[in-house]
Amino acid sequence: MTYDLVKTDAGLAVRRSAAADLPLRYFLCIGRNYADHAKEMGGKASAENPVLFTKSPACAILSGDDIVIPAICQDREQVDFEGELAVIVGERARDVAPDRALDHVLGYCAANDVTARWWQKEGSGGQFNRGKSFDTFCPLGPRITAARAIPDPQSLAITTTVNGEVMQHASTRDMILSVASLIAECSRGATLLPGTVILTGTPSGVGTARTPPRYLKEGDTVTVEISGLGAITNKVRLER
Amino acid sequence: MTYDLVKTDAGLAVRRSAAADLPLRYFLCIGRNYADHAKEMGGKASAENPVLFTKSPACAILSGDDIVIPAICQDREQVDFEGELAVIVGERARDVAPDRALDHVLGYCAANDVTARWWQKEGSGGQFNRGKSFDTFCPLGPRITAARAIPDPQSLAITTTVNGEVMQHASTRDMILSVASLIAECSRGATLLPGTVILTGTPSGVGTARTPPRYLKEGDTVTVEISGLGAITNKVRLER
Repeated sequence: MTYDLVKTDAGLAVRRSAAADLPLRYFLCIGRNYADHAKEMGGKASAENPVLFTKSPACAILSGDDIVIPAICQDREQVDFEGELAVIVGERARDVAPDRALDHVLGYCAANDVTARWWQKEGSGGQFNRGKSFDTFCPLGPRITAARAIPDPQSLAITTTVNGEVMQHASTRDMILSVASLIAECSRGATLLPGTVILTGTPSGVGTARTPPRYLKEGDTVTVEISGLGAITNKVRLER
Repeated sequence: MTYDLVKTDAGLAVRRSAAADLPLRYFLCIGRNYADHAKEMGGKASAENPVLFTKSPACAILSGDDIVIPAICQDREQVDFEGELAVIVGERARDVAPDRALDHVLGYCAANDVTARWWQKEGSGGQFNRGKSFDTFCPLGPRITAARAIPDPQSLAITTTVNGEVMQHASTRDMILSVASLIAECSRGATLLPGTVILTGTPSGVGTARTPPRYLKEGDTVTVEISGLGAITNKVRLER
């Protein structure tokens, strides 16, 4: 069972029924949640305290929409892909135990945590949000697969390709903190509202960590596919 | 002219009319926007590229509500105040010029960017969001004063007191990037949706930079007052 994603004047929403769209209102992202990716980025993974940052809800787009590299990111090559499993919170969560955490999940989809590396690292005093939040920098979908259809979110294959070439390929079982652990941890002292999206971190293989680096350029086609959830495909173009 | 702030099941909203509440959906915060505060925190201010980070929209509260220090922040003294001018975006903004930027402002209010310092700096890999986003950590108000009543947002006095003692006192003219410049800069390549709140940075005098440090504790009363906008007052208590 799946739900459609629809565009609204405030980003994307999940169409649960004709009468009730759930706006995707808050994008909480997890850094360094796959050990191989933490290593390739020169950092260390920590199972105890995850790295949390956010993306703007205004930057979410559908599969088939273009990733548009804005003028502000065009003075150097820097725009990168990060294939991730996205978790949509459907029920309010606060201080939930890990063994009840998945009860709060509406469903899952594929996501691309598109990132402008210079703005992520140098351009905003080390705070990731800006480099992650340019318009079109969060493709999601293709639909939301209901949580009950995915009894074990830690057994999904995730694959990112650029122009058909495999760049990332991993299993969600390699996450350091599981989906249930992330919901439990992120809800400690903080309410996760319905419509919160948790991007659960990217595995190794991102463009910036390659030799030579492989940044996204005009004409590229990026696909993030997750077994059981489907694939999102987005072309890349420059803003002119 | 002012608008009321009201509680909804997804945080706060501005009551523009009985038929149209504007949800406060995205809290974009500016770091180091007063030179004296950048210095007291051991960093340097940069007029060129502001430090951007976010708070969760779920943590916004009204004047008169309690700031509740959650269990997760009680193993050490760390919860701090940051008085700030908040700007409510009313009209969608993308790549706006500084001289048109204030046309996108619905209004202004006082804000307290409550911060758990350990979680801001050590607990989340250096990413500020988590330490800024515990429930109740964003008092706002007391109402939204319409932009047309505040022709010059750079001539406001901002004062933070704890139990009546002045901790911060500055003028918004000391901002490094003005409100207009911030809107222009933050809208480069990224859409600011209506209901975006920009917290424009805090002046010097925060508790963590004092000798000895002055963190918030149970029974404290914190007030942030901005000339022409009014005052927000919140008591502090521990979650039990």
